Amino acid sequence: MSTVTAYAAPAEAAPLEKTVIERRELGPHDVLIDIAFAGICHSDIHTVRGDWGPQQYPLAPGHEITGTVAAVGAEVTKHAVGDRVGVGCLVNSCGECRYCLRGDEQFCTQGAVGTYGAVDRDGTITQGGYSEQVVVTEGFVLRIPDALPLDAAAPLLCAGITTYSPLRHWKVGPGTRVAVVGLGGLGHMGVQIAHALGAEVTVLSQTLAKQDDGLRLGADRYFATSDRETFRKLRGSFDVILNTVSAVIDLRSYLGLLDVDGTIVCVGAPAEALALNAGSLIAGRRSIAGSNIGGIRETQEMLDFCAEHGITAQIEVIPASAINEAYERVLASDVRYRFVIDAATFV
Amino acid sequence: MSTVTAYAAPAEAAPLEKTVIERRELGPHDVLIDIAFAGICHSDIHTVRGDWGPQQYPLAPGHEITGTVAAVGAEVTKHAVGDRVGVGCLVNSCGECRYCLRGDEQFCTQGAVGTYGAVDRDGTITQGGYSEQVVVTEGFVLRIPDALPLDAAAPLLCAGITTYSPLRHWKVGPGTRVAVVGLGGLGHMGVQIAHALGAEVTVLSQTLAKQDDGLRLGADRYFATSDRETFRKLRGSFDVILNTVSAVIDLRSYLGLLDVDGTIVCVGAPAEALALNAGSLIAGRRSIAGSNIGGIRETQEMLDFCAEHGITAQIEVIPASAINEAYERVLASDVRYRFVIDAATFV
Repeated sequence: MSTVTAYAAPAEAAPLEKTVIERRELGPHDVLIDIAFAGICHSDIHTVRGDWGPQQYPLAPGHEITGTVAAVGAEVTKHAVGDRVGVGCLVNSCGECRYCLRGDEQFCTQGAVGTYGAVDRDGTITQGGYSEQVVVTEGFVLRIPDALPLDAAAPLLCAGITTYSPLRHWKVGPGTRVAVVGLGGLGHMGVQIAHALGAEVTVLSQTLAKQDDGLRLGADRYFATSDRETFRKLRGSFDVILNTVSAVIDLRSYLGLLDVDGTIVCVGAPAEALALNAGSLIAGRRSIAGSNIGGIRETQEMLDFCAEHGITAQIEVIPASAINEAYERVLASDVRYRFVIDAATFV
Repeated sequence: MSTVTAYAAPAEAAPLEKTVIERRELGPHDVLIDIAFAGICHSDIHTVRGDWGPQQYPLAPGHEITGTVAAVGAEVTKHAVGDRVGVGCLVNSCGECRYCLRGDEQFCTQGAVGTYGAVDRDGTITQGGYSEQVVVTEGFVLRIPDALPLDAAAPLLCAGITTYSPLRHWKVGPGTRVAVVGLGGLGHMGVQIAHALGAEVTVLSQTLAKQDDGLRLGADRYFATSDRETFRKLRGSFDVILNTVSAVIDLRSYLGLLDVDGTIVCVGAPAEALALNAGSLIAGRRSIAGSNIGGIRETQEMLDFCAEHGITAQIEVIPASAINEAYERVLASDVRYRFVIDAATFV
């Protein structure tokens, strides 16, 4: 056991503060990572504040981690000291169920182990990336291609895979008409990835405030959802709508934007239920689906894809001392498009 | 123009009564059919009673029609006098849009023409199968294979294709775990077709009252949804749930029955909205979809499939004089499983 400096919530309602957490001794399959950067995901805030259920404190969040390998266990073959690596939302799974075997660790029947606030397979509670170092079993450590800077690559580990996976699963490519709802941390990745996949990309955002950004990121068109005319004008014109917004949306309006056989994929879940009229689905053999991050193999594929296409997150790098202020700005949607903490400032 | 005897609703709230309706003169591509049998679909009742919008009266419903060809227009090539034929939910479409061209006439951008109560392309209002004869353009007339009796084949034209199409679209076959919700007119077809496609079939019905029927029709298992234990026991165990029930269901419970990547397909729409928790979709990359009858090519494929596998509807043949009583029994779910009107009794 060793201790490392971290920024953690000491209690449910408390701001994050500098503290010390434990990391396990390096097992034979473990990789010790010197963390370089950690992205701030909206989930971090929900989790440390107990919005998604009670937590054990102190809790250091962070599941968009990049860094370099500092040491490897005796039997590690996948990574070597000095390698540029990343860790996303998952750090373990059973490895034996049918989902793990096919690379869908996020659906592990034993429960995939989240990067923080989860019970690991050894019974300890996981601690996330807002810290100097992390120990992760090699199967859950990703390679960061040289073409990707470690700071702007960090958000790919959650925001990147969360949007890449459904775009691939629903076969987005040349000729696909994709709408991305919301241009935030997730949406700004979805736009870039869908564009790189060859799709025709439309952003549907509340206002036109971020239109220039959207078009620069690869969107072909940009519409305001606050304008009811948008829903009339775009009726029946999308194959896939990637809904990155966690607020309640008027499903019937969005279903009306789908062509026959179209699908709305939700990657964010509002706390309240959505009202679904089955008739809106039946009328055009439409679907509503959900997607949950992605497996490890697919996360590596996403990183390689982003490297090949020059895709990174648009980030604002902050010191650890600014985390609590950044949380308030995330909640106010005042970030373009992801905060990334410089881990050098954790110590 | 010629006149034929029919059973029609004279007004929105009125019982059906014997009357006379007009049929157009045989055009070059038209087929005149001596109707032998017409199934009673729940939609007939909703439509004539104005539940789905105002109608023009008198209105003869009926879109599960079988009979024989009495005459053909000069340029008809697909059918000949004496052929055993059927007509389903559609009698026309534009024939030129991308949906029509790919055989999905039900999604015609100009609006597919329903068999009754719809504005046909010549501006007249269509009249359905509760009548002696009908004139239909040859492209919308199906062949009834010799192996299928005309009475028990009639419901295939709506209930058959409504369940066959989604089972095929969602690739049900050997190894697929299918649940059919509701064992009524649609459900009893869905069970037979899913079984013939090689799937493992489970019926989810409110009670076990029809269990013997369900198992005889090909179900491997039968569970009561009134028993909460059913939802615990079957958690995560289906790839496809075919929901044939038009009542509001507790979506969260049913989504819990789906395995990862599973889909609930709704073919009946309740008037009220369903409450959808997006988290239930995200957790297992699940989907909710809708399906709307099927195209003409697929309807023919379904008829041939049913003939090959000995699948017909379980029917109760009634005279025209019993239509109004039959409507009350349909509304009370007191039919196993479809009423079929003997058209010889229309005159």
